[in-house]
Amino acid sequence: MPTRRTVFFISDRTGITAEMLGNSLLTQFEDFQFRRITVPFIDSPEKVEDVIRQVNETGVAEGRRPIVFSSVVDEIASETIRARAEALTLDLFQIFIAPLEAELAAKSSHAAGRTHGIANSHEYYTRMEAINFAQSHDDGAATRELAKAQVILVGVSRCGKTPTSLYLALQFGVRAANFPLTPDDFADHKLPGSIDGHRPRLFGLTILPERLREIREERRPGSRYASIENCRYEVREAEAMMQREGIPMIDTTSKSIEEIATTILHRAKVERHVY
Amino acid sequence: MPTRRTVFFISDRTGITAEMLGNSLLTQFEDFQFRRITVPFIDSPEKVEDVIRQVNETGVAEGRRPIVFSSVVDEIASETIRARAEALTLDLFQIFIAPLEAELAAKSSHAAGRTHGIANSHEYYTRMEAINFAQSHDDGAATRELAKAQVILVGVSRCGKTPTSLYLALQFGVRAANFPLTPDDFADHKLPGSIDGHRPRLFGLTILPERLREIREERRPGSRYASIENCRYEVREAEAMMQREGIPMIDTTSKSIEEIATTILHRAKVERHVY
Repeated sequence: MPTRRTVFFISDRTGITAEMLGNSLLTQFEDFQFRRITVPFIDSPEKVEDVIRQVNETGVAEGRRPIVFSSVVDEIASETIRARAEALTLDLFQIFIAPLEAELAAKSSHAAGRTHGIANSHEYYTRMEAINFAQSHDDGAATRELAKAQVILVGVSRCGKTPTSLYLALQFGVRAANFPLTPDDFADHKLPGSIDGHRPRLFGLTILPERLREIREERRPGSRYASIENCRYEVREAEAMMQREGIPMIDTTSKSIEEIATTILHRAKVERHVY
Repeated sequence: MPTRRTVFFISDRTGITAEMLGNSLLTQFEDFQFRRITVPFIDSPEKVEDVIRQVNETGVAEGRRPIVFSSVVDEIASETIRARAEALTLDLFQIFIAPLEAELAAKSSHAAGRTHGIANSHEYYTRMEAINFAQSHDDGAATRELAKAQVILVGVSRCGKTPTSLYLALQFGVRAANFPLTPDDFADHKLPGSIDGHRPRLFGLTILPERLREIREERRPGSRYASIENCRYEVREAEAMMQREGIPMIDTTSKSIEEIATTILHRAKVERHVY
C-alpha cells in the first residue's frame, strides 16, 4: 500500500502555477499517493484564516501534517500561512522574490492578480484571435485564410491535430490550422491542393498504428476505419508522403499535448509566449 | 526608459512550468523590460553546454548577466547550469526536492519527463474526451449529450463562452458545453428549451456592453449586432434572465480565461485537475 499524503495548493490567484509546479515535484515520488486540494483566490485575511484552519484540521484528522504549496503573492498573507499552518509549507513565490529584488536593485510590487490578468489587451486579442483561428481552421474546415497560419498541422484522422492546434492557440497564442490527410490523398499520391502552396509552414503528426486503432475504436467501434489494417495503411502512406514532400514530422504516440506543441514550436522556430 | 534584462527559461522538458512561474515573478517588477528566451528539452550534456554558452555570450554582449529560471529535473545537469552559467540562476525545481525528500523520508526519482507525459492513460482519455466534448458542444451545436456536461456555460454571443469551454477541457479535463442566449430567447422570456432541464449545471457569463461592442466590432464592423444599443439590450436581457432563473453569473470583462475557468470550477464545486 502506498503511503497517502494530503497536499494543498494555495494561491491568491488561480492556483494553476502552484498546481503545475507542485504536480511536477510530486511525480518524483512514485511510492506515494497524494490527495490534492486546490484552494484558489485566498485574497482576504478571513480566507487566510479559513485555509489555515482547513490545513490544520486535516493534519489532526489524518495524524500527519499536510504538504502545502503556496504561491500567495501578498507578503503578509503568505507569511501568516507559513507561520501558522502546521504543514510542510513550500513557498513557490516569495522564495524567489528576494534574490530577484537584489539582482534588479528594485522592490517588487507584491500585487496579486498580475499574471493571468488581462492588463495587456494586445496580448489578449492575439490569444482570442488564435483561438478563433484554430476553431475555424480545424480539420480542413476553412482554407481561405491558411496564409495567416503560423503553423499548419497535417496527419491522418485522430493523430492529435485538433488538441494540439487548440493548445497552441490557448497556451501560446499561436495561430495553428490543421488539415487531414485521407485515403483520397494517398490514392492521388499528392498533397491536398489547398495546402500545397503552404509547404514551409506544414508540420506532420504521426502515430503508431496500434495506438491509432485504439483511439479510433473508441470513436467507431468495429469499423473498417478503426481496423488495424486500415490504420497501418493510412499511417504508412501518410509518413511516405511527408518524407517525399520534406515535411518535418513528430511521433505523437507517447507524447502529451504539451510536449507535441512545444516540440513543434521549437523545431519550426515559432516564437512562443506562455499565458 | 525601462531597464532591459534578458531572461532564460531552461528546462529538460517543455519549459511551460518555468515560464509560467517565471512570468508571474517578473510581472512584480514593472519598471523593467524583460527579453524572454525559452530553451526547452535540455536533456543531454551537449545541450547543457550549448545553453550555458548561450547564456554566457548573452551576458558578455549585454554587459549584464542574464536571469535564468531553471526547472531542470536531472540533478547533474541542473548543478552544472547553476555552477557555470554566469547568471542569477533561480532553480524552481531542485530547491524544493530536498525538503520534500526530508518530509517524505524518501528519495526522489529525479526522472525528467514525468509531468506532461502520458504515463497515465486514463487521465489522457479523460482529457481527450473533454476536448472532443467541448468542440462538439460549442455554441449550442449539439444538445443530445448535454446530460454528460459537467458545466454548461450560457451567455450572449462573444462573451467568452468558447475560449472558457476549451480551456476547461484542455487545462482541467472538465467536460464543458456552451449555449448562446439570443434575442429570440429574450423575446420568449424563457431559457432555450434544450438547456431548461439542466439548470443545476448552468453557469452564466456576462460582460460590460462597452467591452462587448469592441469585441463584436472586430468581427462585424458597423453591424447592428455590434452596436452599443444592441449590446446593451442583449446584456441587460441576459442578466435579467439569469437572475430570474437563479443561474450563477460571472462578469468576464476584466478577467483572463484562466480566472474565468478557475472561478467557475470553484463556485460550481467541480473537481479540477491541472494537466
